[in-house]
Amino acid sequence: MVKLPAILTRYQGEIDAELRSVLADRNSLLYDMIRYHFGWIDEKGNPLQGWAGKAIRPTLCLLACEAVGGNWHDALPAAAAIELVHNYSLVHDDIQDDDRERRHRPTVWSVWGKPQGINAGNAMRMLANVSIRHLDVTPAKQVRIQSMLDEATILLTEGQYFDINYEKRLDITTKEYLQMVGGKTAALIACSLETGAEIGKGARKVIDGLRQFGWNLGFAFQMRDDYLGIWGKPEDTGKPMWGDIKRRKKTLPVVYGIENTSGEMKKILTRFYNDGVQDEEGVASVVRILEAIGAREYTVKVTGHYIREAERILTDLPLGQSAVQDFSRIFHFIAERDF
Amino acid sequence: MVKLPAILTRYQGEIDAELRSVLADRNSLLYDMIRYHFGWIDEKGNPLQGWAGKAIRPTLCLLACEAVGGNWHDALPAAAAIELVHNYSLVHDDIQDDDRERRHRPTVWSVWGKPQGINAGNAMRMLANVSIRHLDVTPAKQVRIQSMLDEATILLTEGQYFDINYEKRLDITTKEYLQMVGGKTAALIACSLETGAEIGKGARKVIDGLRQFGWNLGFAFQMRDDYLGIWGKPEDTGKPMWGDIKRRKKTLPVVYGIENTSGEMKKILTRFYNDGVQDEEGVASVVRILEAIGAREYTVKVTGHYIREAERILTDLPLGQSAVQDFSRIFHFIAERDF
Repeated sequence: MVKLPAILTRYQGEIDAELRSVLADRNSLLYDMIRYHFGWIDEKGNPLQGWAGKAIRPTLCLLACEAVGGNWHDALPAAAAIELVHNYSLVHDDIQDDDRERRHRPTVWSVWGKPQGINAGNAMRMLANVSIRHLDVTPAKQVRIQSMLDEATILLTEGQYFDINYEKRLDITTKEYLQMVGGKTAALIACSLETGAEIGKGARKVIDGLRQFGWNLGFAFQMRDDYLGIWGKPEDTGKPMWGDIKRRKKTLPVVYGIENTSGEMKKILTRFYNDGVQDEEGVASVVRILEAIGAREYTVKVTGHYIREAERILTDLPLGQSAVQDFSRIFHFIAERDF
Repeated sequence: MVKLPAILTRYQGEIDAELRSVLADRNSLLYDMIRYHFGWIDEKGNPLQGWAGKAIRPTLCLLACEAVGGNWHDALPAAAAIELVHNYSLVHDDIQDDDRERRHRPTVWSVWGKPQGINAGNAMRMLANVSIRHLDVTPAKQVRIQSMLDEATILLTEGQYFDINYEKRLDITTKEYLQMVGGKTAALIACSLETGAEIGKGARKVIDGLRQFGWNLGFAFQMRDDYLGIWGKPEDTGKPMWGDIKRRKKTLPVVYGIENTSGEMKKILTRFYNDGVQDEEGVASVVRILEAIGAREYTVKVTGHYIREAERILTDLPLGQSAVQDFSRIFHFIAERDF
């Protein structure tokens, strides 16, 4: 298991404290579902050693603020907002995908039911806006940042729409896959960087460059997720084995597999994805086919392509050496992580 | 059937046009679910004679803007935003309550499934923010109005949380009922008036007064809804017969019934609400008990109390005669409507 790199734990305490402050005065049980999701309490309300996930997005937000010469403390409310948006989408995603486990724990809906899970997610999305209000910026910038977050959330929702819609379709092209992933993952990662750089008062060109960097990083991130959805170990990922295959998700290896098989293999894939047979043997045979045609290596290769593109954009930006190093630690982690 | 009063159709065309403009450039199928919900298209995408509900909230927003001397056209983006927030909550509520029908049509989730229904609602909530951006106000006021809308949505979510939570409880007090209704209904109605008056540049005292007026109107509105949930005709309300009873909702007549029965009647209510027996005879016997103990008259009486309180607040505000008349037409409709 690849350890969480130091760069991802550097700000964790402050991000966690900022998140807790957004929830501080919210006492109804509604908010306990959120505290549970973040790992601060168990389902009975007892305090836990908190673990709020990998915090990649808020870390990127703070790093972007620093990279353009700002004080990263100024961006903390935005970082917390972005983490709330991300986790809002996870809580709803677990409901939509019927996933009972995340981060080695029962998902919110599997403890409190789907109707309340929807409420928990909705509250998180609104608390993100509350957090944005804590930014010490001009009202005009406040509006700009709010708009960025809203637009990223809209793309996120579109991505979720495609993700579910594609479950029923076999003919997903790489272009459609990228559109889905752009919304589902890359948009919010790009937004994290853009927001941080805005708060740090970066030059327009640098802000735009960091956003572009974020898009590529986001694609790579999702592709690694797709990889781990098939070849990751459940004990590392905290997700059920082969869950993506069972839910007929059109991840990159699968899109590649459908495009690059013929004859008997194609027939097996078509049968699996059209009929949705759910037995373990059917799932295993899909995985065997994907491995046989090199979908695993292909996924690693394309992930690497996006990582290198991100690297190229980064190198062209007028940033300090330490910022570039911090970012490159993150993209190495993204490309190589096992969880 | 009480007809929709002219005051509620006066701005309907402009509100509808404003809503359509928010969605104009959004072409993915995700947005067709929203168009379907608003009654602009059928499930296959064919255009329909649009009917976007009663539009009470956006109308109140525009009226408040006018009442304080503003130009109601200026408040249209806020009115559209409020209608989007209201309908976001309806789309999610139908999922949470498992309701297959609304406004005499299949609900969004019953056409596209619950996972996509969640996405449709989420997109609507974000489009409300997009609409707020169309306001021609200073950034500072933009932020203030956005905060009001967010805070109302948070209360809405809390109200939804209580609403579902109370299904499993028998001991709901009137105070708890009012807290739920405050969030679920009154907060957004109060927000509609407050927002409109802010955009119309009303004096602080008048804005606060209109908000208070809205809270009382909101309570009355929900109580009438509670009434119609038991004694309304499905052909008028567009909702299934006795749906509130079947889902064990703690509406005002039910809270009153539980508090004011004893002996055999209490036993029947307790059995129904604790065991959740769903047969028609059980439901009918609950309704008979509520009628026998006067829950129907009680609900009408309490609704009237809030209407009169709203009226009193309104009369004390320095508003023109025509504004007061417009508002009073709305609260008479709210108290007497059959749908």
